[in-house]
Amino acid sequence: MIIVMQPLASDADINRVVEKITGLGLKVHLSEGRYRTIIGVIGDKKVINGFPVEALPGVEKVVPVTESYKLVSREFKHEGSVIDVGGVPVGGESLVVMAGPCAVESRDQLLEAARAVKDCGAQFLRGGAYKPRTSPYSFQGLEEKGLEMLAEAREKTGLKIVTEVVDTQSVPAVSAYADVLQVGARNMQNYQLLKAVGKAEKPVLLKRGMAATINEWLNAAEYIMNEGNYNVIMCERGIRTFEDYTRNTLDLSAVAAVKSISHLPVIVDPSHGTGVGKLVQPMARAAVAVGADGLMVEVHPNPAEALSDGKQSLTPANFAGLMREVAGIAALMGRRLA
Amino acid sequence: MIIVMQPLASDADINRVVEKITGLGLKVHLSEGRYRTIIGVIGDKKVINGFPVEALPGVEKVVPVTESYKLVSREFKHEGSVIDVGGVPVGGESLVVMAGPCAVESRDQLLEAARAVKDCGAQFLRGGAYKPRTSPYSFQGLEEKGLEMLAEAREKTGLKIVTEVVDTQSVPAVSAYADVLQVGARNMQNYQLLKAVGKAEKPVLLKRGMAATINEWLNAAEYIMNEGNYNVIMCERGIRTFEDYTRNTLDLSAVAAVKSISHLPVIVDPSHGTGVGKLVQPMARAAVAVGADGLMVEVHPNPAEALSDGKQSLTPANFAGLMREVAGIAALMGRRLA
Amino acid sequence: MIIVMQPLASDADINRVVEKITGLGLKVHLSEGRYRTIIGVIGDKKVINGFPVEALPGVEKVVPVTESYKLVSREFKHEGSVIDVGGVPVGGESLVVMAGPCAVESRDQLLEAARAVKDCGAQFLRGGAYKPRTSPYSFQGLEEKGLEMLAEAREKTGLKIVTEVVDTQSVPAVSAYADVLQVGARNMQNYQLLKAVGKAEKPVLLKRGMAATINEWLNAAEYIMNEGNYNVIMCERGIRTFEDYTRNTLDLSAVAAVKSISHLPVIVDPSHGTGVGKLVQPMARAAVAVGADGLMVEVHPNPAEALSDGKQSLTPANFAGLMREVAGIAALMGRRLA
Amino acid sequence: MIIVMQPLASDADINRVVEKITGLGLKVHLSEGRYRTIIGVIGDKKVINGFPVEALPGVEKVVPVTESYKLVSREFKHEGSVIDVGGVPVGGESLVVMAGPCAVESRDQLLEAARAVKDCGAQFLRGGAYKPRTSPYSFQGLEEKGLEMLAEAREKTGLKIVTEVVDTQSVPAVSAYADVLQVGARNMQNYQLLKAVGKAEKPVLLKRGMAATINEWLNAAEYIMNEGNYNVIMCERGIRTFEDYTRNTLDLSAVAAVKSISHLPVIVDPSHGTGVGKLVQPMARAAVAVGADGLMVEVHPNPAEALSDGKQSLTPANFAGLMREVAGIAALMGRRLA
Repeated sequence: MIIVMQPLASDADINRVVEKITGLGLKVHLSEGRYRTIIGVIGDKKVINGFPVEALPGVEKVVPVTESYKLVSREFKHEGSVIDVGGVPVGGESLVVMAGPCAVESRDQLLEAARAVKDCGAQFLRGGAYKPRTSPYSFQGLEEKGLEMLAEAREKTGLKIVTEVVDTQSVPAVSAYADVLQVGARNMQNYQLLKAVGKAEKPVLLKRGMAATINEWLNAAEYIMNEGNYNVIMCERGIRTFEDYTRNTLDLSAVAAVKSISHLPVIVDPSHGTGVGKLVQPMARAAVAVGADGLMVEVHPNPAEALSDGKQSLTPANFAGLMREVAGIAALMGRRLA
Repeated sequence: MIIVMQPLASDADINRVVEKITGLGLKVHLSEGRYRTIIGVIGDKKVINGFPVEALPGVEKVVPVTESYKLVSREFKHEGSVIDVGGVPVGGESLVVMAGPCAVESRDQLLEAARAVKDCGAQFLRGGAYKPRTSPYSFQGLEEKGLEMLAEAREKTGLKIVTEVVDTQSVPAVSAYADVLQVGARNMQNYQLLKAVGKAEKPVLLKRGMAATINEWLNAAEYIMNEGNYNVIMCERGIRTFEDYTRNTLDLSAVAAVKSISHLPVIVDPSHGTGVGKLVQPMARAAVAVGADGLMVEVHPNPAEALSDGKQSLTPANFAGLMREVAGIAALMGRRLA
Repeated sequence: MIIVMQPLASDADINRVVEKITGLGLKVHLSEGRYRTIIGVIGDKKVINGFPVEALPGVEKVVPVTESYKLVSREFKHEGSVIDVGGVPVGGESLVVMAGPCAVESRDQLLEAARAVKDCGAQFLRGGAYKPRTSPYSFQGLEEKGLEMLAEAREKTGLKIVTEVVDTQSVPAVSAYADVLQVGARNMQNYQLLKAVGKAEKPVLLKRGMAATINEWLNAAEYIMNEGNYNVIMCERGIRTFEDYTRNTLDLSAVAAVKSISHLPVIVDPSHGTGVGKLVQPMARAAVAVGADGLMVEVHPNPAEALSDGKQSLTPANFAGLMREVAGIAALMGRRLA
Repeated sequence: MIIVMQPLASDADINRVVEKITGLGLKVHLSEGRYRTIIGVIGDKKVINGFPVEALPGVEKVVPVTESYKLVSREFKHEGSVIDVGGVPVGGESLVVMAGPCAVESRDQLLEAARAVKDCGAQFLRGGAYKPRTSPYSFQGLEEKGLEMLAEAREKTGLKIVTEVVDTQSVPAVSAYADVLQVGARNMQNYQLLKAVGKAEKPVLLKRGMAATINEWLNAAEYIMNEGNYNVIMCERGIRTFEDYTRNTLDLSAVAAVKSISHLPVIVDPSHGTGVGKLVQPMARAAVAVGADGLMVEVHPNPAEALSDGKQSLTPANFAGLMREVAGIAALMGRRLA
């Protein structure tokens, strides 16, 4: 941490800062310029975390040098992590595809979607049993009934199940049915939920919050790992910007950035990331080309009947086309569809 | 709802849409232009909510005409709501001030802050017992011990207590101690929590999410009211933008907008909204001038010792100055500090 | 400037950086921590401006300590500047109001608007003769004819004229008619135009770009002052965010921030800043309360006939109401309507 | 255009709107719902463009049905345009690569860069002779001398030249030297400049403004085409968002969107789009995979000596690696490097 003093900071101001820092057991390094003094802080930054140096008189700004996360970083673990989901690897040389309807609506709809995405080569079935919706009057999901249908679909197809957990209380129920617990974008900074899934036995898929910086997203993963669950899959799903042609702005540079900073696998959701059906396939190609470890795609047997997000869902036929195109790029990237 | 068909939509496309809509028990009104047909939908919009008209062939876009919230709107209740918090009115002609430290750190710190803000004219003591923090290694709050200290401070000063509830499980505990349950910005779309506080007996202060539109914020309030709790206080605390001089961009136009759309009272938090101590007082003045029903201000007996957000906290002396300036503008606006 | 080296930077890397910096005639100060070395750079930062230290091997990041502007800052000139516009002061204790139609549409419209805003107490008439419009098919302004009408309106009312200059070539023509040259938001980083108005004899009103940080806005003013024209008036008019209820998000905290960093006067345009007629008056009050030196307000004798931006224009009657409310707050702030 | 009336609009309000519209020679179609009336407007929308319907009493909102651009759209020209730049096609089946330094710094630097990018397979040399810089104290370019160097590099290598034009006055000079006139992001809504390049004989590369919506970007292209210059190449270079790890957020979904709406070719600049050297190559791959017609990449013979944007520049060796990877994806996409 570097502390930049104001040009007019007095010696007393500087001494006060130095005393505070050394009083915490840290070392300082003074650099006196013509106009101002700069104080380098040396030692375990956890000690100073939360101590409001900026509020001390004479301090202009504080510049962090190291990040506040540790377990997620490549400095902590150099090799890319491969998460084992009941025999299906996420990360490494495999490319995983998670597909299915936005929401579980009925047994028939789900089984039809499951068979379709299985036939096209997906390894995971996605589908929401609990749906966070902007309006309280929108369809909220089938809840535990939906979980049972997901389990049945797994039994019938062999697909792994990824589904959202929306509060701490439902973690045990969702864990009992799902192979991967999804934390949604709106809950990325619901720290109680992060701690709860951090104590669960199942891998976690952590969606990026719509206004979350890369740094905050990595810190959210750190919350989960800090509880002992190291099986975290990151999922880029678009950020909120001024552009209104798309529902969100899918930030593919974040995929490359996170993969350079962190050892965790990163997948991309071009369905929520664009919100526009015709953009899903091109962005799926781009996601694989940028280096993503997988895709999450909304596929509905009949998008025009979907109870949520039909606009961005693909038909099984469209999804088959997407898979063909993605396979070519995956091969170029040294990836195989598991 | 208005459905705009594509210029090349066929009669079959148009008929299909009309049949779907009328099949839901709604009426349609066709408007055939030279280039395209427009379909007006008449009837209860809840019926069509979640039905993906946009995914039907030939549909270009769908334009909602009415909003998805109802209970929060001035059409539902014309008069501005006044929330009674144990005898202190929020809304109407009163101007409330909620002040205190960001986090409860110790009994002494809290009592000193409480006495200071009481002396300056605040009616509420704010202070977090549970702190949502970006990094898992930052100070996370004193939890139930902090709640006890808040209750003691109320007893000693007569101030009402507003404090954050961060998950559904702690709603009963926080309700037992606090006068107002605060839902933080990060949890504005934590719908399970919204439903839980919607069933609680205490008024709720609902902070705007950092990437929430005014529409989403009002829908979040609708979640709470839909559970039966009509005592909701809205709190603007800044949105996330590209500007990095301030921590957030405090959106005062949202205060005027919400007050025109909704009957709920709206207060402003210039401390989190700017994140910069020297901007708190000018923005507090502006908030009252724009028509806010109150302020939430961070005051710490010794900001340089604060365990969180010290940079934006005011000293008791600064806060006294703020209250003097705000009083003048409040009088002009026909408000009295209760 | 502080250079943070990577944890694994070699001695050769460090020496290379040191040699580059000292080769530019600057001094360095080394601070060696346990994990990394930090290099402070001491001396005239203009020398290093544009030199890509970040591209040198082993460098992790570069942290600027001083800003790249100088003439605009309070360190350069401590006292707030008062710009004299033909006898009307902008800044200091006066509060100026610039009002009139978005675009000059006809002689009658302009004279009617001018008389109305003069009667209400405005000191400046605003109105665009050259209109930058998103679509090439929208009304583009009356150009030189519009300038003549503005000059006639000045003659008849005594109001000062502020109008936009949209390219370098029209600077002489606009200077011949106007009292203040307005640089619009879309041109805030049109550096050729900034240099041209920097050489003009007339004061400049510099609107903030819709995606400009406070830092970039101050640098744009620096461009003008660097050419010798010190008569710059800053105008906050809203930034582009995700919120779509308003046309822009009016950033009043930027007003307080710029007034603390810079000696230049700052005015606020709540008409473009909100784009919603009913929000203009509350935000005008808030702007004065936050400390703005003036307001720019769209007033049209008949908004429903306006050729541009009618939605956000006030009628003369609404404007009269605004002026009454603003006067009360101005008095509290120690300002007088000149 | 659809006009949505307020629920309480009177018959007089409705009649007034209808009279205004029909008075402009347009037809209306009334749709009376239970709660409100909706008015469809039929006829040439240019007639109503700029007429402030929203300011009429009783009007709640106005919903445009058709876009304000025409010449840029696929409805106007169904086939994708191929721009011929002195024998090099942009669009169609070719993939163009424009590479070179951010700024022309010296004859040696430029020639060395030109030879390097030519050897790697680029068809265009990029390099700024006029540099728009945030601070007036940063390097501003070699101006006409730089243009001469670019022409010399073309002569020596056969590369086509693309360089920025920063004001209307320099259009003739830049046209005399360059093969393609670049309009930079900061000037995307400098309409005088758009009109000037619209009258020039050379193709135009139009960068997206950093806060421009897709709609505004297409309208900017419409300005150029409306003057008669149909040779417009769009260039996505990132938008401004809250994320600060990257300099901008490269919006690849906009590439797919513009290619679906418009017949114009679209290229991508991953150098400015990310501002981070290590992200350029992955994002170049993704750009080709999403369907871009080309790339613009910063390459400097010695990034550590670059006078601007060295941080994001590639060395010739890195660029060679990028070209190899891009070639594989281009082949999959049915593109050939011309």
